[in-house]
Amino acid sequence: MEVVVPFAATRPKTRLAGVLDPDERRAFAREMLDDVLAPLTAVRHDGERPHPTVLATAPVDVDVPVTVDQRPLTEAVNAALATHEPTADDPLAVVMSDLPTATVESFETLFAAPGDVVVAPGLGAGTNCLVVRHPEFRVDYHGASYCDHRRAAREVGATVEEVDSRRLATDVDEPGDLTEVLVHGDGPARDWLVDAGFELAVDEGRVGVQRDGVGVDTD
Amino acid sequence: MEVVVPFAATRPKTRLAGVLDPDERRAFAREMLDDVLAPLTAVRHDGERPHPTVLATAPVDVDVPVTVDQRPLTEAVNAALATHEPTADDPLAVVMSDLPTATVESFETLFAAPGDVVVAPGLGAGTNCLVVRHPEFRVDYHGASYCDHRRAAREVGATVEEVDSRRLATDVDEPGDLTEVLVHGDGPARDWLVDAGFELAVDEGRVGVQRDGVGVDTD
Repeated sequence: MEVVVPFAATRPKTRLAGVLDPDERRAFAREMLDDVLAPLTAVRHDGERPHPTVLATAPVDVDVPVTVDQRPLTEAVNAALATHEPTADDPLAVVMSDLPTATVESFETLFAAPGDVVVAPGLGAGTNCLVVRHPEFRVDYHGASYCDHRRAAREVGATVEEVDSRRLATDVDEPGDLTEVLVHGDGPARDWLVDAGFELAVDEGRVGVQRDGVGVDTD
Repeated sequence: MEVVVPFAATRPKTRLAGVLDPDERRAFAREMLDDVLAPLTAVRHDGERPHPTVLATAPVDVDVPVTVDQRPLTEAVNAALATHEPTADDPLAVVMSDLPTATVESFETLFAAPGDVVVAPGLGAGTNCLVVRHPEFRVDYHGASYCDHRRAAREVGATVEEVDSRRLATDVDEPGDLTEVLVHGDGPARDWLVDAGFELAVDEGRVGVQRDGVGVDTD
């Protein structure tokens, strides 16, 4: 299966600005990309490994092909869909690059799910992974994209299947999301956080994160 | 399978105090309990339906047996485990009562998972569902209970299996969690929120909730 992995190479993860400076955000985003590519390239689906391409806003040094496209996310992904013209026999998957708790098993479940459009929702009404098997389906990542993608699929007569995975639902945008990486990650993004001084912090029964022993505001 | 569903009947969901008054929090918690019991009682596991018991801090009017136990959550659940003495042939499941996006399929996956201790983690390092098949395992819901439960299982020589489900991971404690109910719920808890004036609110690409047209602080 062909898989497009969009990656914001220049100014990633602005909502982590309260806890990471711009260089740190770039470094952490890069580790998260590796945390997605490692299980993705290890999956076996229909006896084959997937073929990921990173769709980046600027050149990035990875072991898979890179397409540079400076357009906004929605436009760039829709251009890839228009070029590929996905069908049941030749689907195109779109997997976000900020899912550092994803595993081989979660991607296998995603790729094995039937449906013209398979959606792994993100928390907060987002869309973290898609498998598209219909040539007319297009994306719109702005706002409550999970709801919009269900509607867009209906409008082109495509069936929709939802994949129920916490690991694929966990995209990392805000400081509170770092808790999930520390608890459920086991790759370079988690290692990077630990090296940067982050650890779990338990406060009045709630679990958040702290850095160098100082609590991080995750509210 | 025997299933214990702990339910705080008197002062539930205090972290929703910013958006719901005490009577509303009690009413909403009660709807969420129904949203858990409905799919739970519809599951077929090994050709049988599960047998849920609500473990409540005060009497509650539901269509399943109720055990009233005023002790804190951890003590009350451990008393149930000690009484039941779970084994592989006679497991005991513990399912939280604030999982309003849970479905029949997600509970089937939970009950079908092998392992002496099966854990469906909650977001934020919590433990939303357990299936216990080992007589010595005990719970501790304080703090990062997911990590603690893995350790506790190891200490009694029990194998651990993790269930990767967004729906079982979504417990509703804070205003931001209401987004998940509005997007992915389809039962009485979602209906209650809609009747109370809640709807999705999209702000600068982020999706939160608003009530009666006024934004709710979910940060």
